[in-house]
Amino acid sequence: MVYTVPHYIAGQAFTETTNSGQELYNPAHGEIIGRVNFANAVICDKAVAAAKAAWPAWAETTPIKRMRILFKFRELLEKHQLDLAKIVTREHGKTLDDAKGSVARAIEVVEYHCGLMTQLQGTFTPNAASQIDCTTMRQSLGVCAGVSPFNFPVMVPVWMMIPAIACGNTFVLKPSELDPSAPIRLLELLSEAGLPAGVANCIQGDKSTVEQLLHHPDIAAFTAVASTPVAETIFTTATAQGKRAHTFGGAKNHAVVMPDADMDQAANAIVGAAYGSAGERCMALSVVVTVGEHTAENLLEKLVPLTKAMRISSGDTLGCDMGPLISRQHYQRVRNAIDQGESEGAKLLLDGRSFKHAEYPHGYFMGPSLFDHVTETMSIYQNEIFGPVLVVVRVANFEEALSLVNRHQYGNGTAIFTREGFYAREYAARVQVGMVGVNIPIPVPIASHPFGGWKRSSFGDTHMHGLESIHFYTKLKSITCKWPISSSNENAFTMPTHG
Amino acid sequence: MVYTVPHYIAGQAFTETTNSGQELYNPAHGEIIGRVNFANAVICDKAVAAAKAAWPAWAETTPIKRMRILFKFRELLEKHQLDLAKIVTREHGKTLDDAKGSVARAIEVVEYHCGLMTQLQGTFTPNAASQIDCTTMRQSLGVCAGVSPFNFPVMVPVWMMIPAIACGNTFVLKPSELDPSAPIRLLELLSEAGLPAGVANCIQGDKSTVEQLLHHPDIAAFTAVASTPVAETIFTTATAQGKRAHTFGGAKNHAVVMPDADMDQAANAIVGAAYGSAGERCMALSVVVTVGEHTAENLLEKLVPLTKAMRISSGDTLGCDMGPLISRQHYQRVRNAIDQGESEGAKLLLDGRSFKHAEYPHGYFMGPSLFDHVTETMSIYQNEIFGPVLVVVRVANFEEALSLVNRHQYGNGTAIFTREGFYAREYAARVQVGMVGVNIPIPVPIASHPFGGWKRSSFGDTHMHGLESIHFYTKLKSITCKWPISSSNENAFTMPTHG
Amino acid sequence: MVYTVPHYIAGQAFTETTNSGQELYNPAHGEIIGRVNFANAVICDKAVAAAKAAWPAWAETTPIKRMRILFKFRELLEKHQLDLAKIVTREHGKTLDDAKGSVARAIEVVEYHCGLMTQLQGTFTPNAASQIDCTTMRQSLGVCAGVSPFNFPVMVPVWMMIPAIACGNTFVLKPSELDPSAPIRLLELLSEAGLPAGVANCIQGDKSTVEQLLHHPDIAAFTAVASTPVAETIFTTATAQGKRAHTFGGAKNHAVVMPDADMDQAANAIVGAAYGSAGERCMALSVVVTVGEHTAENLLEKLVPLTKAMRISSGDTLGCDMGPLISRQHYQRVRNAIDQGESEGAKLLLDGRSFKHAEYPHGYFMGPSLFDHVTETMSIYQNEIFGPVLVVVRVANFEEALSLVNRHQYGNGTAIFTREGFYAREYAARVQVGMVGVNIPIPVPIASHPFGGWKRSSFGDTHMHGLESIHFYTKLKSITCKWPISSSNENAFTMPTHG
Amino acid sequence: MVYTVPHYIAGQAFTETTNSGQELYNPAHGEIIGRVNFANAVICDKAVAAAKAAWPAWAETTPIKRMRILFKFRELLEKHQLDLAKIVTREHGKTLDDAKGSVARAIEVVEYHCGLMTQLQGTFTPNAASQIDCTTMRQSLGVCAGVSPFNFPVMVPVWMMIPAIACGNTFVLKPSELDPSAPIRLLELLSEAGLPAGVANCIQGDKSTVEQLLHHPDIAAFTAVASTPVAETIFTTATAQGKRAHTFGGAKNHAVVMPDADMDQAANAIVGAAYGSAGERCMALSVVVTVGEHTAENLLEKLVPLTKAMRISSGDTLGCDMGPLISRQHYQRVRNAIDQGESEGAKLLLDGRSFKHAEYPHGYFMGPSLFDHVTETMSIYQNEIFGPVLVVVRVANFEEALSLVNRHQYGNGTAIFTREGFYAREYAARVQVGMVGVNIPIPVPIASHPFGGWKRSSFGDTHMHGLESIHFYTKLKSITCKWPISSSNENAFTMPTHG
Repeated sequence: MVYTVPHYIAGQAFTETTNSGQELYNPAHGEIIGRVNFANAVICDKAVAAAKAAWPAWAETTPIKRMRILFKFRELLEKHQLDLAKIVTREHGKTLDDAKGSVARAIEVVEYHCGLMTQLQGTFTPNAASQIDCTTMRQSLGVCAGVSPFNFPVMVPVWMMIPAIACGNTFVLKPSELDPSAPIRLLELLSEAGLPAGVANCIQGDKSTVEQLLHHPDIAAFTAVASTPVAETIFTTATAQGKRAHTFGGAKNHAVVMPDADMDQAANAIVGAAYGSAGERCMALSVVVTVGEHTAENLLEKLVPLTKAMRISSGDTLGCDMGPLISRQHYQRVRNAIDQGESEGAKLLLDGRSFKHAEYPHGYFMGPSLFDHVTETMSIYQNEIFGPVLVVVRVANFEEALSLVNRHQYGNGTAIFTREGFYAREYAARVQVGMVGVNIPIPVPIASHPFGGWKRSSFGDTHMHGLESIHFYTKLKSITCKWPISSSNENAFTMPTHG
Repeated sequence: MVYTVPHYIAGQAFTETTNSGQELYNPAHGEIIGRVNFANAVICDKAVAAAKAAWPAWAETTPIKRMRILFKFRELLEKHQLDLAKIVTREHGKTLDDAKGSVARAIEVVEYHCGLMTQLQGTFTPNAASQIDCTTMRQSLGVCAGVSPFNFPVMVPVWMMIPAIACGNTFVLKPSELDPSAPIRLLELLSEAGLPAGVANCIQGDKSTVEQLLHHPDIAAFTAVASTPVAETIFTTATAQGKRAHTFGGAKNHAVVMPDADMDQAANAIVGAAYGSAGERCMALSVVVTVGEHTAENLLEKLVPLTKAMRISSGDTLGCDMGPLISRQHYQRVRNAIDQGESEGAKLLLDGRSFKHAEYPHGYFMGPSLFDHVTETMSIYQNEIFGPVLVVVRVANFEEALSLVNRHQYGNGTAIFTREGFYAREYAARVQVGMVGVNIPIPVPIASHPFGGWKRSSFGDTHMHGLESIHFYTKLKSITCKWPISSSNENAFTMPTHG
Repeated sequence: MVYTVPHYIAGQAFTETTNSGQELYNPAHGEIIGRVNFANAVICDKAVAAAKAAWPAWAETTPIKRMRILFKFRELLEKHQLDLAKIVTREHGKTLDDAKGSVARAIEVVEYHCGLMTQLQGTFTPNAASQIDCTTMRQSLGVCAGVSPFNFPVMVPVWMMIPAIACGNTFVLKPSELDPSAPIRLLELLSEAGLPAGVANCIQGDKSTVEQLLHHPDIAAFTAVASTPVAETIFTTATAQGKRAHTFGGAKNHAVVMPDADMDQAANAIVGAAYGSAGERCMALSVVVTVGEHTAENLLEKLVPLTKAMRISSGDTLGCDMGPLISRQHYQRVRNAIDQGESEGAKLLLDGRSFKHAEYPHGYFMGPSLFDHVTETMSIYQNEIFGPVLVVVRVANFEEALSLVNRHQYGNGTAIFTREGFYAREYAARVQVGMVGVNIPIPVPIASHPFGGWKRSSFGDTHMHGLESIHFYTKLKSITCKWPISSSNENAFTMPTHG
Repeated sequence: MVYTVPHYIAGQAFTETTNSGQELYNPAHGEIIGRVNFANAVICDKAVAAAKAAWPAWAETTPIKRMRILFKFRELLEKHQLDLAKIVTREHGKTLDDAKGSVARAIEVVEYHCGLMTQLQGTFTPNAASQIDCTTMRQSLGVCAGVSPFNFPVMVPVWMMIPAIACGNTFVLKPSELDPSAPIRLLELLSEAGLPAGVANCIQGDKSTVEQLLHHPDIAAFTAVASTPVAETIFTTATAQGKRAHTFGGAKNHAVVMPDADMDQAANAIVGAAYGSAGERCMALSVVVTVGEHTAENLLEKLVPLTKAMRISSGDTLGCDMGPLISRQHYQRVRNAIDQGESEGAKLLLDGRSFKHAEYPHGYFMGPSLFDHVTETMSIYQNEIFGPVLVVVRVANFEEALSLVNRHQYGNGTAIFTREGFYAREYAARVQVGMVGVNIPIPVPIASHPFGGWKRSSFGDTHMHGLESIHFYTKLKSITCKWPISSSNENAFTMPTHG
């Protein structure tokens, strides 16, 4: 029974056959499970029109009422956490536990915006000049749009939509065409939570749908999480037309391992961060930089057996550590990258290419690969692979490690493993990366601290999460006020004595 | 069937007959409905000991986990809003709608503290001096105690307990002995929400119980809402022993009505604010100051018929506007105040003393009373009556009105009714009152803005609500940090070049 | 004696003859007073290189030390306020009092950034998860560039440079080629205040110089104040290359005059706001919208005589109200706009075209012009004139006024004149304009509240002033930290009991 | 030539002989250099009356104008830094460098309050409920009073007065009778900076003068830095009368030295922190807790020679490290404490009692004393000595060290010396002390981070510095505003459509 994933516009799911679309596959089985039709210009316009129509009333809805819908939405996300995770596993392939974790990270951002009354507070200066008061407040932008990636089909849409609508905007989401079902379920839950029709909308589509939205005159702001070239194009196209934009791109996240690190803790942390979700995370740890003479050996002694022990299977298998890659095409891309690494002369300690799953021979499974003696110029070091491939670069000392990281084109996340306050502080202060972990392999901050990369890992002035999202989704208005003294000639209105 | 109201300690309700206690009455019926036994020293110690034992683990519980219990508690309050309101109406007498409104105001404060992750954020200054970082954070105080009044048996306990426990403290509540059932229900709901045993506790008692708590060495902070003499005594006793304290006392809230006010709106606002909850609110509007020659007449023309039309009955009667007073003793106090006003020469336009309820002849019902031509020296102007009595003072102009309000001993709330920005701004800027309404008769701020009076209406440095509660329930710690350069003689730890 | 205005790079003023450049005129006299040579590519590179070289040390300079240079710079600005104003008047033409006022506004922004230690504070969440702490801090961007306009040759450069360098960036300024002397004086004073060489630099140039800077790979952020087409081009060019940018453009600022306004106050306010600085301000008030039947007459009765009484002369003349326009070309543009207004059928109440200054026949003087019965479609209503021309549009009611303002392409500043709180609040809440005055004709907020327009009056996510400048000139870094338990086997390092 | 130190009231210094007073000594020479007469009730009243009279105009002065006086005062403090330091050295005895440092710390707090426009901002919530706005602002308290100690005659008065007057209060200072000249100089400089007469006042006196102020009805808030018994009495007396108060008392600051500490750095840091200013600092480091078997030996090996090398002389001697104690009486108290430590069985490694200064035989000089093997029950461990006496306690492990510190009655400052992030984080998180240094011996935070102790080291809810001072010196007012729809029947005032 193959299903068709609908659009969701103005509070209604609907399906309409258009000229384009594609099949959906369960990546563990390699079989077709559904189909998605892409929105054409008419459907795009319809979604934007719905969002535009809903904006004035939603913007005037008191923030307390908007906030209460978030409270209800949070309850529903919690109640449906497992259902949502199952949808994610089915279409994306990641393990059920990992999928549940990604829903939990979505819930955290909803929880954060339940503090909306503090986040949206303006400022007030009485008597800025004699008898003159100054007030500044933040107001919503209008219709906002977001393009979300395949790797987090619940979490990223929530990270985009919830801050936007909390601030009084309305939203049009274009999720990944590879796993588009979960976002539709989110919109149903938002409706159930009381969100008025048209405030959040979702249209299915591909690159051409994004183009439609990017050039739509009624969209005020644009966000996207994508590969760096796509993120950059969306950013520059949007800003060129006067839309506010911030987009988030690729990464090559380094872990610097100092000689004094707790090697057991480091190895455990790294194996999960490198291979979890099959490496299909912008915060995946894909480079280890070992510092000093024996550090690589000390670490690999722990890391190799842990990696070998990983259980690979369909994401809904109890106790498995890693599922398949998202698609046959992506499998091939990752395979090519490993081939190239080998040909460039890196030492392949573990080779994931040979892995075959007995039960699911058509699934897009790849085992974990581990390269040692990788150098800066190799393509497996320079490029994001977005697969279960970890590379080890060996350097002599801390300064070499720091400068290597700072030379890389990406600056999303990074970690240092050490016990010493000195190196942790130096690294955090000087590294040109937006998110830094000290003995934390995937330093995604909690929702009250901003999330975002530096260099070619993100485009735009603001990060996501916390007050950054509030700033992105609102604009400032400053009011300066002075009252004329009452002109009333009633005796009651005697002039105040303090002039 | 007469019930006995228990204590609630360490997650358990329990009843124990002690030497003292008293009967509970339904004030609309004037009949005994229950009994409460007062905690003796042993029970007080037990409650404080439970709170003390629970503190270390609760303080170390991550704020996110504490916050999630608040999310759950909020859901339960919403679900049980009507049940809680019925308990309030039964023991206090206010109308069911009013009682539901007071539960809603409790929910608002819970919602506010669901923004805990922002509210508890510390501050960080990197490179405060060369290579030196400065961090400030807030930590919990320990065991906190609160004494809540009879007029808001759900709202005020929530306003006290929730900020305290949100910040990592544990709590002992001593509610009013006149309507002690609702707080016990709150503690049950907190337990159901997942609050660990001992974090919030409640003991029944009277003044001597408060004395026990006030002198208990293991209590770090004290709050109370009470009459001004009691609030002052609690404040000075607590602070004299090094406890942190803020307490909230009585009020005489003035509404200044300017000649240009919208008289329909003003009259409607005033009648509700003066007589709602039978005037038993610290934010009740009990004085109207009319400004200018014809303002009093213009206002009274609207106000008198509205007041006469009020429906008085048992609070659970559909459509009634006002219920009985809390007790026979309080009825007599209010009656005496009216007698005195009459004997002082104020003009009694409406006399509530004669009201008798046909169905409930033993209820403590009193009709609304309205005095005109009241002057500053009269006792009905100077003292808080805490009953359905409104007095009108006439003044010639704005400055007289402002200066009258500023001379009064209390400074809790006040309102001005006008259309002109000029008078609104002057009044708000210059009045010596903590909460000001512009065309708003009961200016209780939303939970993200602080609540509290000035002058003899409150004692202590901080108000309630918003960041004021966070500040009251935490203390600051500042950390200044510099790391020595690594002493490692491994080659890996080469000195960083930037010195 | 004709002077040559230098560049200022790496702490040194220097002059070099290049292929391009232009003469400087005193606009009141219409005579050549100096010359400015434009920077070629070599000089641009030199300036950027100086800023790039100075950045690392400046970024690591503690914020307290950076702040102390601002304290000293503030003293110097105060000491040299008159000198600076004289330079402004000489090259720009505005009156000396107006020029002094613009220096005072520059000083305010310096004063604001003397609060840097608060503004740059990061946030800290201890125990974000068990034993894990989260820290967020702001770091500088690198080399920033600014293009400043002719109308505020002291104020705008200070508004750009000071926030940038306060945050740890270095700066390259390209001031207007019409009045480039004052910025050079600012750089000298910054050096005198202790700013290290290379932190702030200034190059003279025109549009092609801007192009050089816009495409320079070592510039991280760009700001500009210019006409809307230029501001937009700079914004889109800069963002297309991954530079952070915010730019500020043109305006058509409306004053809505309600029937109940204090007409004396309104007329006084409007005459100054419309004609001050010869209308060459992005915050000049250039449209009056009168609401209701008699309002236009009531206002004009006061406004016309006030306008007629204006004294026009060389800006250094004691007591004069308005000086000349900036240049012969601009004079002609303004004249053309008036011609067009006349031909479109607007009623020209006062005609400034005929004004001739007896003493300075070659000066670019124009008298104040006032049009009545202007309609929405006329070019004098639609376009920014940037001269002493005020137009009156008459509407029937408040909603018409509001909707007229909201339809205009610009949304920089606006004012409403009324006594009623209701209309002030409605207007401030609903108008699509970034800066709103209530009975304040030029609502430039104080430096602690942000400055910036909406719609086509500004480009980018952030305004200027206050925390907006801090956000623009820094990027966020989030650090998540967990320490491994000590591995020391010295007895001293017994495991802590709380795990 | 013996001088007489005046009072300073309402902008005037004046001297009046009263019944009480005392001689002033130069503690290095042991000779009389001046005299101070104590204020009687009449003079106290006069000072409070001056402050009360100055309050209304000062409170209404715009914060920008108040802030500009601080800018000017800062310039004057910088200009007179050496003069002020000389006064401090002459009357207090500390070295000139140390005295200059204390003036620098005063300047830092003035600089901080130059950010007043940010610090005093209120908050604003538009549309808190439908068409209702909520604003909160901070207003001044009235007349505030402060009692400052002998050890920081410039720094502490500035820390008290400047935040108070920045917020719009007026002030009466009662400095120490042992070194009262410097505060008078501060008031002269404040006047020179433009502070209106009566805003800051200073009266000389002793304990009975403090009593007068404490019971004065016109004083709204009280602060003091004193010994713990005095600080506690002032706090409880003030709060008992409804005055706001926070007071700061004694200390016994521990440095925990871990085995992995950089012993050179630790020893250097400790010698300065223990003996600087002859130990007469509430942040002096007076206890070293060595952790582990060999740590005490390793540390003492460095510490003893450094201590022996200290140069003791009159504070104005070039290159000296420590001056005399403040008075003959205090010398005797410190001597008694050492005697007692010896008799209790502690091992006296260095004995300062024998020190005699060749040139100044009458000066109150004492050499540095160092006790080893001190135990928890000894008086030299339990009590604050406030002299150049350091005690070493040896413990086996980190948990013992932490629990020792947490059991002490005082909790002002503390430090840990370690390289490991783990111990630094554990210590900072769990120690019951208000100010924590990580490898920083005297962790006085910078002025933007609060200063204050825990337990019996401070009394009241707020610390000093940063926003804590702003909160202490202001009270909150919350305004809730709704405007009636215009009643105007002019056509112009058509109802807005959005209701």
